[in-house]
Amino acid sequence: MQIFSVVAAVIGLIVAFCLAAWIKKADEGTDRMKEIAGYIREGAMAFLRREYKTMVIVIAILFVLIGFGIDWTTAVLYICGALLSVLAGFFGMKVATLGNVRTANAARESGMNKALKIAFRSGAVMGLCVSGLGLLGLGVIVVCLDLTDVAHAITGFGLGASSMALFGRVGGGIYTKAADVGADLVGKVEAGIPEDDPRNPAVIADNVGDNVGDVAGMGSDLFESYVGSIISAITLAAVAVANAPEVATFSRVEAAAFPLVISAVGILASIIGIMMVRGKEGANPATALNMGTYIAGGISAIATVVLSKQILGDYTYAIAIIAGLVVGIAIGKITEVYTSGDFASVKRIAEQSQTGAATTIISGLGVGMMSTLWPILFICVGVFVAYYFAGLYGIALSAVGMLSTTGMTVAVDAYGPVSDNAGGIAEMSELPHSVREITDKLDAVGNTTAAIGKGFAIGSAALTALALFASYAAVTGLETISLLNPIVIIGVFIGAMLPFLFSAMTMNSVGKAANQMIEEVRRQFRSDAGIMAGTSKPDYANCVDISTKAALKEMLLPGVMAIVAPLAVGLILGPEALGGMLGGSLSSGVLLAIMMSNAGGAWDNAKKYIEEGNFGGKGSDPHKAAVVGDTVGDPFKDTSGPSINILIKLMTIVAVVFAPLFLEVGGLIKFIG
Amino acid sequence: MQIFSVVAAVIGLIVAFCLAAWIKKADEGTDRMKEIAGYIREGAMAFLRREYKTMVIVIAILFVLIGFGIDWTTAVLYICGALLSVLAGFFGMKVATLGNVRTANAARESGMNKALKIAFRSGAVMGLCVSGLGLLGLGVIVVCLDLTDVAHAITGFGLGASSMALFGRVGGGIYTKAADVGADLVGKVEAGIPEDDPRNPAVIADNVGDNVGDVAGMGSDLFESYVGSIISAITLAAVAVANAPEVATFSRVEAAAFPLVISAVGILASIIGIMMVRGKEGANPATALNMGTYIAGGISAIATVVLSKQILGDYTYAIAIIAGLVVGIAIGKITEVYTSGDFASVKRIAEQSQTGAATTIISGLGVGMMSTLWPILFICVGVFVAYYFAGLYGIALSAVGMLSTTGMTVAVDAYGPVSDNAGGIAEMSELPHSVREITDKLDAVGNTTAAIGKGFAIGSAALTALALFASYAAVTGLETISLLNPIVIIGVFIGAMLPFLFSAMTMNSVGKAANQMIEEVRRQFRSDAGIMAGTSKPDYANCVDISTKAALKEMLLPGVMAIVAPLAVGLILGPEALGGMLGGSLSSGVLLAIMMSNAGGAWDNAKKYIEEGNFGGKGSDPHKAAVVGDTVGDPFKDTSGPSINILIKLMTIVAVVFAPLFLEVGGLIKFIG
Repeated sequence: MQIFSVVAAVIGLIVAFCLAAWIKKADEGTDRMKEIAGYIREGAMAFLRREYKTMVIVIAILFVLIGFGIDWTTAVLYICGALLSVLAGFFGMKVATLGNVRTANAARESGMNKALKIAFRSGAVMGLCVSGLGLLGLGVIVVCLDLTDVAHAITGFGLGASSMALFGRVGGGIYTKAADVGADLVGKVEAGIPEDDPRNPAVIADNVGDNVGDVAGMGSDLFESYVGSIISAITLAAVAVANAPEVATFSRVEAAAFPLVISAVGILASIIGIMMVRGKEGANPATALNMGTYIAGGISAIATVVLSKQILGDYTYAIAIIAGLVVGIAIGKITEVYTSGDFASVKRIAEQSQTGAATTIISGLGVGMMSTLWPILFICVGVFVAYYFAGLYGIALSAVGMLSTTGMTVAVDAYGPVSDNAGGIAEMSELPHSVREITDKLDAVGNTTAAIGKGFAIGSAALTALALFASYAAVTGLETISLLNPIVIIGVFIGAMLPFLFSAMTMNSVGKAANQMIEEVRRQFRSDAGIMAGTSKPDYANCVDISTKAALKEMLLPGVMAIVAPLAVGLILGPEALGGMLGGSLSSGVLLAIMMSNAGGAWDNAKKYIEEGNFGGKGSDPHKAAVVGDTVGDPFKDTSGPSINILIKLMTIVAVVFAPLFLEVGGLIKFIG
Repeated sequence: MQIFSVVAAVIGLIVAFCLAAWIKKADEGTDRMKEIAGYIREGAMAFLRREYKTMVIVIAILFVLIGFGIDWTTAVLYICGALLSVLAGFFGMKVATLGNVRTANAARESGMNKALKIAFRSGAVMGLCVSGLGLLGLGVIVVCLDLTDVAHAITGFGLGASSMALFGRVGGGIYTKAADVGADLVGKVEAGIPEDDPRNPAVIADNVGDNVGDVAGMGSDLFESYVGSIISAITLAAVAVANAPEVATFSRVEAAAFPLVISAVGILASIIGIMMVRGKEGANPATALNMGTYIAGGISAIATVVLSKQILGDYTYAIAIIAGLVVGIAIGKITEVYTSGDFASVKRIAEQSQTGAATTIISGLGVGMMSTLWPILFICVGVFVAYYFAGLYGIALSAVGMLSTTGMTVAVDAYGPVSDNAGGIAEMSELPHSVREITDKLDAVGNTTAAIGKGFAIGSAALTALALFASYAAVTGLETISLLNPIVIIGVFIGAMLPFLFSAMTMNSVGKAANQMIEEVRRQFRSDAGIMAGTSKPDYANCVDISTKAALKEMLLPGVMAIVAPLAVGLILGPEALGGMLGGSLSSGVLLAIMMSNAGGAWDNAKKYIEEGNFGGKGSDPHKAAVVGDTVGDPFKDTSGPSINILIKLMTIVAVVFAPLFLEVGGLIKFIG
């Protein structure tokens, strides 16, 4: 049965390959377009290469630690997880940097329809690489190894994916925001030149940032969510069998195979959904994208019901999965209410911008904090329903359900930055204004349709972390992690603090990196007046280099902290305190992530709402205040917020992988007691 | 033995009365000073009266709920707790509004020494009222009623104090910040007139705000911390006896009396400390204040060691108490490192103000988040030490230890706003510049010396909430509140979300109230040009009225939420989920409170640092950016941040009081399962 997952994964990868070939065949356009696209591609690929190189040392240390501390199977699977994550990011981003210029050219030569198709299919390659490689890896492991051997070793695979995801998200996030802030603050604000103007030295770095942050970073993020949810379901399969209400309607092997099969169906459903996305000239591209998403989701849901009965002998497991899907969509929709310019919250922030930047910030933070209410309640309902119908295993299944159509979700997510990049290339190549209009429209649609994807990211992070937490308890054999035990409370306090500390680190990093960029851009403008006059070319490469170096340097500390913190607490305070820590970081982390992402999104759209001509429009004082909000929101929504989602999962999976070690040591603190 | 606490409380109140009489004897100064002080006093007292009137309905509802749901002893004690809180706030603020003008006059006639004495003693009256009335109430209850009857009923007293504290803090906080922002934004920024200029219509409301927020609100806050910590120790006394390492070295009555005796000693130590504060002309007033604090703390610590051995037969209980004291001081000191202009963090925020308001905000939030690290670790160490040496009872004792010298702490805290008000009166009465210089210096010193008080407030909130949480477990008889139980996790998620929701509400309230104030001030300037010319008097009363109404209206929703949330979760999801909720709100609440308070403090001092002439000084662009930070920080540090401390304790005590009811109902959700 598990072999089906390998087959589906291979089919997904073949489709990805065909799509990539189809994209490559399309024309790149003028020489100028080729030149600029070349800069972006080189910069992006160079960053990834250097990022991976930097991480080799971290990976090597963890490999040795796992090998000696746990066992070498786990250590080898750890390397596999890391490697497949790298491959997914690498291929996906490569195609995205081929697709951007071709999207621009399609918009120039054929119009919206063709441009949408190329941009979306570029994203789809990333989507299918993520889910295909993830499922291929897990499928092969489960098929080749005995499940009782695998149950723990497979968590190593998850740790590989998680650690790459954290560094990818943080590094990419710092890169993109440093370049963005640098380009905006000096270029747009100080020099008064438009967005993506080729005279801006940071403009290439800014476009590279979209790729390394919003494409590669996001891809590695979803890769780890995807494999994390499946792994937690596999490790909880044993628990499921033990607690099955009508005992023995299924075996442990079947329970472990079920999430793989669901994911396999999800890949096939995603392929169908992807193929259904074809814009009609004149129609709203959002319709096409939503259609694809709903088709993929619908097919998955129906198949889930059948397979649940077929494999596990009961429909109740499908309820857990569908609960996950519904919660994901609900979070996505409510996210839109708090962050879209069509609703009251964003309008209120825009209105408050009339009394200056301070009120913009206060109201934005207020919206971000307020926006935690419903997602948390939805997650609670999801947890309750999943647990009620299928126990802890059900919680893992609901995450698997949310993420089964990852291929489609990532495609929709990655299509946005590809369109954004296409717009940048159009601008820099001085293509007619109509081209930019098309890419802008595609980009705007992408922002809205991506809301559901964001809901899935947040919801699945909470559910996956929770399922991994249950796996941790299963591995350690802890029967209770009681809040009445002061050592657990100490763990909870430390855990709740870590996302705050982590956010502080990543925000400071963005600030530092952005400052370096600001100084470099100012320096170039100062030292060569020909740049502004358009007679001499700015030094793009230097800006790319600054962003790269800063991002690589700054990503290390928060990344290492995420790995060291659970190790330290587990070894010093023991497994129960570590359980408390995971619970604390899960709860405060999810809240902080929702707050930061939504506040950032709301500020962004409040600015856009003003730019549409409300409250004075572009250039007015309220607009300036809104720009401050947007700038604060940038690291919120693109660096710190999404990284926290990975942080909580990474810490949990570190705990799961090293659980046997913690049990052996039992907490050094016992020597005091 | 308990009678000693009643005696000490009465002594404290007598001293407070004598100090008040001494202050009243001092001269009020010129007619203009009397007039202005009269406006402030009337406005402040009118607010308190209306605030208490608004709360009568909330109190009545809770009284009936407790009476029918639990029992009438608890309900009556609830009223007593609320009433004593009202009395403490009323007397304390009354004297503060007598002291402000006399401080100004002393600065005018006799200089720094006398001014310090009057300002400090005005604060001391509040301090002794808070601790005297708190201890008197608890002492009388314990002396008059049988301890087995009292153990649960006394939590009603705590609920009374807590509910008044929340409304007081939130209402006062909204009032003071609405007036402050209104006065600053229109007066200082738009009209360009200096702080406390009598032409500003909101200037009286601003000075009233210092009294209702920073004096009365702070007093009710500390009143509830004070009684909360003692109550949790009393309810945990039974647990302590059961778990006493050498069983039966003491009885439950002794264990319950111990915290009362410690607090009694604390009051006497505070009186001595207060008497030791006497400035020397030319010397730094900080020395005098710190001297008083250290003397009071030192006496308490020594007495603790003796009493621990004497009453409980072992020194170990003193270790728990002293751990609390040390943690409080440590948090206070580290708070200074993150929020004082003498250290790197604040300087960095000032430096970042050079690139605009956005970087000011980002770096300030970064500092706030980063500043959670050490306080949390200190609290963890405190919890560990207290628990290690004296069990759960020890955690309550460490909070009692921190708060035993509340009389002194509140005196130092309340002295700041009295000096601030004195400065306002000096300005409005057009006294010579030298008077303002003295009051400014007193105010500045107050800000620094208050840091330790803030550390105690945060640390004691965490420890008291934790101790009350243990009381909750003891009352419900829950043996475990396990994070592995999904219903507990649901509780944790909801609990972690509530401080975010609550902060959003209070920040939005400040925003709304401030907007009304801004419009009123603008309206007055527009409709009567004579105001700016100084020929006609602005309508102060209208501004006072607007702040009052807005604060009373806006405080209801967050206040009611804090009471309803634990009731709803307890009744619907059951006692275990409520336990999870309390744990979740405790952890995320403490973090959010530390972050908001420290970010606010850091922004405030970054602005002051620039005003001292750094990075361009007053009026420069960096200064404007820093003002934005300061304005964002205002509701952070004076409304939302401190209110969260009360929120988490109030929710816990609601849970403790209504625990019998939750046990009876057992969670309506069981009807699904």
